[in-house]
Amino acid sequence: MSVSDLDHVAIAVKDLDNAVATYKKLFSNDPHYENVPDQGVRIAAFELEDSRVELIEPLNDDSNLHRFLDEHGEGIHHVALRTDDVDEELDRAHEVGLDRIDETSRSGAQGYEIGFLHPKGLHGCLMELAEPPSSEERE
Amino acid sequence: MSVSDLDHVAIAVKDLDNAVATYKKLFSNDPHYENVPDQGVRIAAFELEDSRVELIEPLNDDSNLHRFLDEHGEGIHHVALRTDDVDEELDRAHEVGLDRIDETSRSGAQGYEIGFLHPKGLHGCLMELAEPPSSEERE
Repeated sequence: MSVSDLDHVAIAVKDLDNAVATYKKLFSNDPHYENVPDQGVRIAAFELEDSRVELIEPLNDDSNLHRFLDEHGEGIHHVALRTDDVDEELDRAHEVGLDRIDETSRSGAQGYEIGFLHPKGLHGCLMELAEPPSSEERE
Repeated sequence: MSVSDLDHVAIAVKDLDNAVATYKKLFSNDPHYENVPDQGVRIAAFELEDSRVELIEPLNDDSNLHRFLDEHGEGIHHVALRTDDVDEELDRAHEVGLDRIDETSRSGAQGYEIGFLHPKGLHGCLMELAEPPSSEERE
């Protein structure tokens, strides 16, 4: 199977510092921070054993995430599935009739290559395909 | 850390058979089906390497999930974090000020003991704490 496991889930929040303070109560560790200008988001990622929970905040008012928060409020934004070849998986998704947002991979956080499938084709779930930099290097 | 990893994500759908047909294109395997009358849901669970994606359909019109679908439409419903002691984790959550839906654990799908934390305290994310029957027995 080309999709192997859950890689992460991302939760849309309005105020990252405030959300981090809350989620530190749940996870008892400190997150890794990263800005991803391409996606218009700032991320705080809590690492778990073999996955992570990301809190994501809009970098600016033009961000898609800003519009998401205006429409839906805070909450779960997307799910990411791990794959060893995101371009191959995007092609396969297209061949079986699943709508892609990205036709080819692009750079994500933490050195990942990523691509998104459209929620309209997946019963409302925005699904990311996520290829780690290499299986050995993954924390 | 008492919360070790992502256990599963659950996606609320109106028609389970229809949704399974879609998600089989993504996962290329067959799901495990289970009714959980206590939660008013029918589940189709796609197993991944060390996690799973659940599609959940309301068992009847009185189900909380039926109301969720009326209000929000189809989409990601909750995230589940794996723990080895859900009652201890529910107590710890309460002590640090996170709102619980369940004060004590109850039976979930696949022999799990589970408990939910309230989305209002977690920036809109309905969070399940999920204790597998035993680490050895887990598929």
